[in-house]
Amino acid sequence: MTQAANNRRLGLWLIGARGAISTCVGYGLGGLGQGLLDPIGITTTRPPFTELPLVPLESIVLGGHDVCARDMSQSAGELVRAGVLPADLVTACASFAGAFERRIRPGVLDGPDVGFADLDPRAAELGAAAPLEQVRRVAADIDAFQAETEVERVVVVCVASTEASRADQPEWADLAAFERALEAERPQPASLIYAYAALSTGRPFVNFTPSLGAQVPALRELAEKKGVPHCGNDAKTGETLVKTALAPMFHARALRVLTWQGYNMLGNRDGEVLRDEAHKQAKLRNKDESLRSILVDSPDLHSTVGIDYVPSLSDWKTAWDFIHFEGFLGARMSLQFTWAGSDSALAAPLVLDLVRLADFAAGVGESGAMDQTACFFKDPLGGGTHDFHQQYARLLAYAERHLAR
Amino acid sequence: MTQAANNRRLGLWLIGARGAISTCVGYGLGGLGQGLLDPIGITTTRPPFTELPLVPLESIVLGGHDVCARDMSQSAGELVRAGVLPADLVTACASFAGAFERRIRPGVLDGPDVGFADLDPRAAELGAAAPLEQVRRVAADIDAFQAETEVERVVVVCVASTEASRADQPEWADLAAFERALEAERPQPASLIYAYAALSTGRPFVNFTPSLGAQVPALRELAEKKGVPHCGNDAKTGETLVKTALAPMFHARALRVLTWQGYNMLGNRDGEVLRDEAHKQAKLRNKDESLRSILVDSPDLHSTVGIDYVPSLSDWKTAWDFIHFEGFLGARMSLQFTWAGSDSALAAPLVLDLVRLADFAAGVGESGAMDQTACFFKDPLGGGTHDFHQQYARLLAYAERHLAR
Amino acid sequence: MTQAANNRRLGLWLIGARGAISTCVGYGLGGLGQGLLDPIGITTTRPPFTELPLVPLESIVLGGHDVCARDMSQSAGELVRAGVLPADLVTACASFAGAFERRIRPGVLDGPDVGFADLDPRAAELGAAAPLEQVRRVAADIDAFQAETEVERVVVVCVASTEASRADQPEWADLAAFERALEAERPQPASLIYAYAALSTGRPFVNFTPSLGAQVPALRELAEKKGVPHCGNDAKTGETLVKTALAPMFHARALRVLTWQGYNMLGNRDGEVLRDEAHKQAKLRNKDESLRSILVDSPDLHSTVGIDYVPSLSDWKTAWDFIHFEGFLGARMSLQFTWAGSDSALAAPLVLDLVRLADFAAGVGESGAMDQTACFFKDPLGGGTHDFHQQYARLLAYAERHLAR
Amino acid sequence: MTQAANNRRLGLWLIGARGAISTCVGYGLGGLGQGLLDPIGITTTRPPFTELPLVPLESIVLGGHDVCARDMSQSAGELVRAGVLPADLVTACASFAGAFERRIRPGVLDGPDVGFADLDPRAAELGAAAPLEQVRRVAADIDAFQAETEVERVVVVCVASTEASRADQPEWADLAAFERALEAERPQPASLIYAYAALSTGRPFVNFTPSLGAQVPALRELAEKKGVPHCGNDAKTGETLVKTALAPMFHARALRVLTWQGYNMLGNRDGEVLRDEAHKQAKLRNKDESLRSILVDSPDLHSTVGIDYVPSLSDWKTAWDFIHFEGFLGARMSLQFTWAGSDSALAAPLVLDLVRLADFAAGVGESGAMDQTACFFKDPLGGGTHDFHQQYARLLAYAERHLAR
Repeated sequence: MTQAANNRRLGLWLIGARGAISTCVGYGLGGLGQGLLDPIGITTTRPPFTELPLVPLESIVLGGHDVCARDMSQSAGELVRAGVLPADLVTACASFAGAFERRIRPGVLDGPDVGFADLDPRAAELGAAAPLEQVRRVAADIDAFQAETEVERVVVVCVASTEASRADQPEWADLAAFERALEAERPQPASLIYAYAALSTGRPFVNFTPSLGAQVPALRELAEKKGVPHCGNDAKTGETLVKTALAPMFHARALRVLTWQGYNMLGNRDGEVLRDEAHKQAKLRNKDESLRSILVDSPDLHSTVGIDYVPSLSDWKTAWDFIHFEGFLGARMSLQFTWAGSDSALAAPLVLDLVRLADFAAGVGESGAMDQTACFFKDPLGGGTHDFHQQYARLLAYAERHLAR
Repeated sequence: MTQAANNRRLGLWLIGARGAISTCVGYGLGGLGQGLLDPIGITTTRPPFTELPLVPLESIVLGGHDVCARDMSQSAGELVRAGVLPADLVTACASFAGAFERRIRPGVLDGPDVGFADLDPRAAELGAAAPLEQVRRVAADIDAFQAETEVERVVVVCVASTEASRADQPEWADLAAFERALEAERPQPASLIYAYAALSTGRPFVNFTPSLGAQVPALRELAEKKGVPHCGNDAKTGETLVKTALAPMFHARALRVLTWQGYNMLGNRDGEVLRDEAHKQAKLRNKDESLRSILVDSPDLHSTVGIDYVPSLSDWKTAWDFIHFEGFLGARMSLQFTWAGSDSALAAPLVLDLVRLADFAAGVGESGAMDQTACFFKDPLGGGTHDFHQQYARLLAYAERHLAR
Repeated sequence: MTQAANNRRLGLWLIGARGAISTCVGYGLGGLGQGLLDPIGITTTRPPFTELPLVPLESIVLGGHDVCARDMSQSAGELVRAGVLPADLVTACASFAGAFERRIRPGVLDGPDVGFADLDPRAAELGAAAPLEQVRRVAADIDAFQAETEVERVVVVCVASTEASRADQPEWADLAAFERALEAERPQPASLIYAYAALSTGRPFVNFTPSLGAQVPALRELAEKKGVPHCGNDAKTGETLVKTALAPMFHARALRVLTWQGYNMLGNRDGEVLRDEAHKQAKLRNKDESLRSILVDSPDLHSTVGIDYVPSLSDWKTAWDFIHFEGFLGARMSLQFTWAGSDSALAAPLVLDLVRLADFAAGVGESGAMDQTACFFKDPLGGGTHDFHQQYARLLAYAERHLAR
Repeated sequence: MTQAANNRRLGLWLIGARGAISTCVGYGLGGLGQGLLDPIGITTTRPPFTELPLVPLESIVLGGHDVCARDMSQSAGELVRAGVLPADLVTACASFAGAFERRIRPGVLDGPDVGFADLDPRAAELGAAAPLEQVRRVAADIDAFQAETEVERVVVVCVASTEASRADQPEWADLAAFERALEAERPQPASLIYAYAALSTGRPFVNFTPSLGAQVPALRELAEKKGVPHCGNDAKTGETLVKTALAPMFHARALRVLTWQGYNMLGNRDGEVLRDEAHKQAKLRNKDESLRSILVDSPDLHSTVGIDYVPSLSDWKTAWDFIHFEGFLGARMSLQFTWAGSDSALAAPLVLDLVRLADFAAGVGESGAMDQTACFFKDPLGGGTHDFHQQYARLLAYAERHLAR
């Protein structure tokens, strides 16, 4: 072990900094720093990760980009009304949250989102700029943040609403082609711009969303070339987490899963965006694959994943899954579950885990896809099994490997 | 690998041979032999276990003890009406089932069960005999079965209804004390008599039930002394299986489980027996412990396990579990599931797995508690984690260790 | 009361006579006649309906039309495997079912269904005939059935798979226009042809399905003109039944329903047909309206009804509904339910109820929409409340009115 | 109609005035008065009840008794943390709640509750006084409240935690015997003392709980003699409400209910009290009867009602019901539901309804059991059907009868 962790400060730059997840990260870090909260839901605060020299949570400094105009107190108010954020915590962390908010800059509006409600006009303007100008402006904002806050390193995390799905572009296939496309002013999805800006300036990048981020070959090449660790995609926070924890049981018991239907309802901004079909496709893509990869003995598995916007649920993602399976003698049985969780309160601690792990990986000189983080994602960058327990065992093994050094 | 598996025949002696599980084992083996069924639910029919020289399923010959008078066609009829056994299968396997039935002998009636309905008077008579006479008669029945069927080895499996719970007896603490008690004609629970008869004649013993079987120190000592492998207790077929597959997810994600309530309903003979409080205690004992051992970061976990006899459900065990947990920011979330499975169709394939594994272990000279089978039990004889996925990983590792030889 | 019920025989002519509902009606009537079944699910076998001189169930004689080629033993086999029909019953009622089957004639294939699997080529041929020729042939089949079986009256019931949805046609607006269109050889949906054939020959018509049947003004006019009673549409058998039984509770308690999501899964032929979007629209139309009409104090109700084809469920329709509501102080609460029922076994007894009630109404000289049957339908022909309890109270009042005479 | 409603003021005297229901009544009335809340959940705020001259909600003045020492801000804090009371509302209604709190007097501690936590020593002292002295003190407190607040009438409502169950006493059989027992200083359950104090001073009494209240013959006689209306017992707020709304559907459809299991979990003070077996029996008594009275065609109904204290749920009563039923052809189907509601937010609006209805009944000179309120109770004082819809129809008929005058 070569890092001295405790006197370092780390920057966490959030793309989507005014959204519900960022709001929870903000008030949560504030509350942890004041001893008002237990670090529930943060895997890296428990053994064996406590023995790794991860950056202390209280040493994390927040900043970020957003395309929305509303301020964080509005997000906070919604989360209080939804019963996610305690009203007391919002009051107690007002100055911490205020400092975070002052470090939020207008982001890059993604092309298909033009015309959405509540937009910051400067984000729309930046969304219309040439790609290289977008990259330059994004990087400059992060540089300024690092200079101002004097943090040792900045990890960039994309927690913005799901981007509209796009067909694969030839320029995404390798770095040279991508850079030519940037110079040729071919517009790019915003998540690629952010990822490029982060990785090209040597900053770890975490894609918490189903958006493209750094998953295209061009950007994966960039990470390797720059020696920067990165991870993603699409955090496994709710129904898919349960799915990938349960499906291995059916597999191990040689039961034949006939049908696995999943009906998701969500009422937050992410859900609102999904009313648009192009955004919905991006979100659903990663939800189905995981089951098939685990249930290899159920080749005729019938599986549908539905996702509906239900405004009254606000941040409370509710899902019902119905699993119909065949046992010995052809007997047909079922398991059904209802999951009701706060989307943001489930996501925020994972952001903190990933930032600490990305910072650690950068510190020990690891680069490229962070395979050890597969348990956090629906579509892990490094591939591999979707079995949650095997993924988690891999994270444990990573920790133990580093501890053994 | 030193065994030549394929030309051997194995005896499977079932304690509770007229019950629903044995009936499913009987018709299931019959149907598999005739190619009418797929081996769904039998873990050892899938890789990597297919590479071990396990005894072929079609080489297993059935016999057993029972205390009931009713014949197997009655059990089969109930299971057909319940939608567990297909009527066609019963017709197709009539002669196979008939041969099994002719090899069933009256068993040892457990003291507290005197007066239950449907009893074979010869079982009541044997239940009243002196313990050593009971042992002698049980062993003689199994010897006769082995001689008649010319099987190479007999594995004894207890699938009888849950026995009434007893306070610990001093004579169970070591083998010498136990054997003195037998000679002094102190009556013993029937499951101990069966286990003693099996182990003392060098036969592997599988305790599929929450009854005592071979779990008392005296009998564990006997197994070691005789060099016989054995395993148990209380097969993990339904709600507890799901529990121990899900609880590790909460642990890995550092979520704090506040409450885990489990309400079980069952309508078969096992359920009927549980209306008696003494039998119910034995059954419930193993249901609660597993959660606490996994959720070590939730020390204040509130957990109740209920079990009710619901006759209309017949063999269809139905359970509802409610899990209330706390995430980041103190947000309270829930997961609830309903499991509806045929108790016997879930159990029968595990019996076949365990018989094959016990036979294999005996063949390679292993003795004592079969730690590798922990994933099959609510209260594994060898102790260890209750995390289903870790238990299964242990079974995989066992197979791979043997394959590597 | 002017009818002498008991020495009459009634013909029941089923459109969709080889389908699952008809199969259950057939074996059910057979089993009731032999005393093998209790009349569970048949409302009219209970007080006060038992006091009305309704035709005895054992006096009902079956015949019908179908467009499929497969024979009833195939439907029966599927229902046995699905655990709906007991195998014993199929054996015991073989001759009754055989007699029914011999009275099935090829039906009129609906235009959009051309090319579906399993079709009887004679049905395809009839589907391509001129509308008046279709009417003539349908009526002739029913006439021949009545002559052969010497039944006093024939009630025609449409239980065929849901027909593809169509835009409203001007010729449906009144009878004269409709008859001109028939003469002009404008093709019509098959359900209209059947309804026209029934009503124009003075036979009561029951539309058990969401198809058009007799609900267009032209045919309602015909029923009035001919003095024939008729009812429909779309039997309320499962999730909608539960919905309309529960929603009045929220209304009576002045609770504000925010969201009512309903996810339906079905695996039978009806479900298979629904994979086609045009058929699905017809089915969904009636599922949403009922809630809004009951929950008049929840004007912002968000409600989605989903319906998915899940083959493994076979005849077992399974639905999950999630109801999110607001109580005093703005507290947000929820009710969720899972309904798992055999679609055909729920539907078949309602067919028998409706046939008896239609026959009774005809006998006492009532004509037009049978308002008293609203509790049986998702979209009752006579309109009115969808509150199940108020609808049922109306049926009780109808019975009592007739009993008081 | 003979009342002039609008310039009257009404006193509402709550037994259990510091509990969660009273707290919701207090802040709820406060919020309604300030226009901060909609009157959701209050049946009498909707037609046709809006046309009756019921006392306006803003004219209700609160006071009450309690045996606990803690102040209302503690209850309010718990309800805010549980997500029932909005924090904003508590702030806005602080002075209204404060005025209510100042009108709370120490109550009569029920004998079996001696030693419970948090007790007001003055309540313990009063609990130990002679019965007639208890009556005198209770009545004097209410008189003083009426004098101070100058309300026209006081309705007394018992919302205290469930009292321990007692065997029937001979002195409860008629009023003379009861009054002799009071004079003979035979201790009585506290709820009888309150009921006697209210009725004997001509004040309507509402028993919202399963405690005895005014349901014994002696007190019913008193109400008749004094010409005072009263109602009870045990408000139908949650699972039983859903049960009695659903069961009539099974009855109307002639379906045979085989099993109805209900598992209730609750975490508030009421639940804590239920950990004591004597208190639990009183609560469970009324939960089972209602089903059997509706499902008269299911004489073999198997039904168990469980109730567990689950502290993490706080005020959120959560129940799972499993209904197993038989349809046509013997097919076995199921309905299951999960209800999750805030116990207090469901109860408080019913208190307001009942107070308005009791005041109205007293105003028009009705006395004895208020049959029209059966839909609000698990065990309605006047008996009759438990079918919620029929009960509600009776309330509507009552309103219409009065409107027609």
